[in-house]
Amino acid sequence: MTHLVTALSLTHFIKSAFLATGFSNEHAETTAQLMVQADISGQDGHGVFRLPQYIKRLQEGGMNPKPDFKILSERVATALIDGDNGIGHLVMRHAADIAVEKARTTGVAWVGARMSNHAGPASLYSRYVLDQGMIGIYVAVGSANHMPPWGGTDMMLSTNPISVAVPSGKNPPIILDMATTVAAYGKVKTLLQSGGTMPEGWMSDKHGNPITDPAKSGDGFLLPIGGPKGYGLALIFGILAGTLNGAAFGSDVTDFNADNKTISNTGQFIIALNIEAFMDIEQFKSQIDKVWEDMKSSAKLPGVDEIRLPGENLARTIEKRTASGIEIPKPLFASLTQLADELSITRLS
Amino acid sequence: MTHLVTALSLTHFIKSAFLATGFSNEHAETTAQLMVQADISGQDGHGVFRLPQYIKRLQEGGMNPKPDFKILSERVATALIDGDNGIGHLVMRHAADIAVEKARTTGVAWVGARMSNHAGPASLYSRYVLDQGMIGIYVAVGSANHMPPWGGTDMMLSTNPISVAVPSGKNPPIILDMATTVAAYGKVKTLLQSGGTMPEGWMSDKHGNPITDPAKSGDGFLLPIGGPKGYGLALIFGILAGTLNGAAFGSDVTDFNADNKTISNTGQFIIALNIEAFMDIEQFKSQIDKVWEDMKSSAKLPGVDEIRLPGENLARTIEKRTASGIEIPKPLFASLTQLADELSITRLS
Repeated sequence: MTHLVTALSLTHFIKSAFLATGFSNEHAETTAQLMVQADISGQDGHGVFRLPQYIKRLQEGGMNPKPDFKILSERVATALIDGDNGIGHLVMRHAADIAVEKARTTGVAWVGARMSNHAGPASLYSRYVLDQGMIGIYVAVGSANHMPPWGGTDMMLSTNPISVAVPSGKNPPIILDMATTVAAYGKVKTLLQSGGTMPEGWMSDKHGNPITDPAKSGDGFLLPIGGPKGYGLALIFGILAGTLNGAAFGSDVTDFNADNKTISNTGQFIIALNIEAFMDIEQFKSQIDKVWEDMKSSAKLPGVDEIRLPGENLARTIEKRTASGIEIPKPLFASLTQLADELSITRLS
Repeated sequence: MTHLVTALSLTHFIKSAFLATGFSNEHAETTAQLMVQADISGQDGHGVFRLPQYIKRLQEGGMNPKPDFKILSERVATALIDGDNGIGHLVMRHAADIAVEKARTTGVAWVGARMSNHAGPASLYSRYVLDQGMIGIYVAVGSANHMPPWGGTDMMLSTNPISVAVPSGKNPPIILDMATTVAAYGKVKTLLQSGGTMPEGWMSDKHGNPITDPAKSGDGFLLPIGGPKGYGLALIFGILAGTLNGAAFGSDVTDFNADNKTISNTGQFIIALNIEAFMDIEQFKSQIDKVWEDMKSSAKLPGVDEIRLPGENLARTIEKRTASGIEIPKPLFASLTQLADELSITRLS
């Protein structure tokens, strides 16, 4: 059972919730639009699904509804931002604006943030840079540790995701958006709700045995892609997005899902890469179309219908949901109704 | 059976071989030093092992012994280099010098190259940037396609590796150096020589069945880390290091192992990230020591002796081989002796 809502009504609802929690009109509008962009794109675990948690965090003092961003240090092609414990969406939108502006002249810019928070799906920010005509690269320290170092059992690392967005000519943009673990923790939660079992390779217990029952996920940890390689990627991404920015990493990371009060000091960075510094942009786009056609032209394994490019499903979902609306599962709809009543705002309909 | 040689005699031998093939003294010296650095670091498949192949390529016209590097386009924080079909070591050393020089003022610099060639292990260049006091990031389009797009069977992608090097205080630097495939092709070749079998998950045949006999590697292809995730990484790295630089990617990539005549137009890029643009460098190094200790402090899975950081084995091998020399396997030693005689240079001893 689901409720079908339009992007417009969902944006309005989320904006109202943030206004009721102390956001400025502009901040509420920007955050609501970014969150709905996640839902429109099929990234259901990172859109309105997170709203009740964000609101709790704002109410209990874990997140600042009126952040005042500061630039802590700056070079011609870099900046380090203090997000003043604002919601990650606003911090990283601001960081992306600075990066794009710098890269227009410098060719590339790298902007990091400390004192940020959960910012939704990684591709929101690589896509924002893409919309300004550049290649966008975004990396974040995840908001809870679910993975030990390779060979260990203490959870020191998060899923630390990366997203890269590259424009094409006549095809959808190529958008990579991936965790450094085999499965994101949200997928485990989804299976728990649906009653399914996990394939071996997603999670391990402390004795090194696979966990396949999602109800037992608390007994173990997520596994990295490619074993030590995914561990290495998560570690390096954590250093670049966390440590280098003076943000939390390793044992400093608090569990954002279990704690609404402690400041998370989340770290992220965004790179804007100006295609024109390397190649005429139209020429580049037609080269990306050639890459697209190359991959599509490959013979297929038995049972495979179609070879896909990263971002292709996303583009299809955006098209479908823009036309027909966003389906909100019943339990989520109920929790949003409860939230509306608590905040004395108009219910989502 | 192996022959033990010193780094100095190996450098001298490699330099002589390049001088005999038309390199300038400076180019021969730089290339020899970088190749021996690979051997000293335990990256045996990417050091002197490659010399006979490089020499053949130079002799048969596939690689230019007297390259004249040009900057094709430049911004304050970016450059695109034409490597004039020189050996990749020289092209990327030059690119790294430009990147470091730019990043001293801009904070970050991204330098790409086209018309380059195989450059040895990825970490040679991230480490070179590290030696100038910055964080180094290097990505390359591999020199032969060994992987299809996810779900496909035509090999359109290479192992497209990434290396990132980060300094620490009292520990070795953290150095990630990884292919986007579960195993690099060199590991398959090594198993073929030693008579071992591959674990399932390294390679698949065109019907989707695992290949475990290295002798049958020609019937199939390498598998990406994390399935579609590793495919996505290889694709994006190929676009950034290849397509964006006007270098070969996808079906344009020639097999460097099978063809000594065709110009490879290899693409690579290097990023120099100036730590001082974000944080005091000594403070950063002590934070990295804390990350190191965090990871080491984790409880261990049964049977695990030690939790390692990326780069830790490399540091140990460097220490060991600097003290006791480099062991050259007998078949390689024989081929280097043959090469010496062909080039009329003094044999390695």
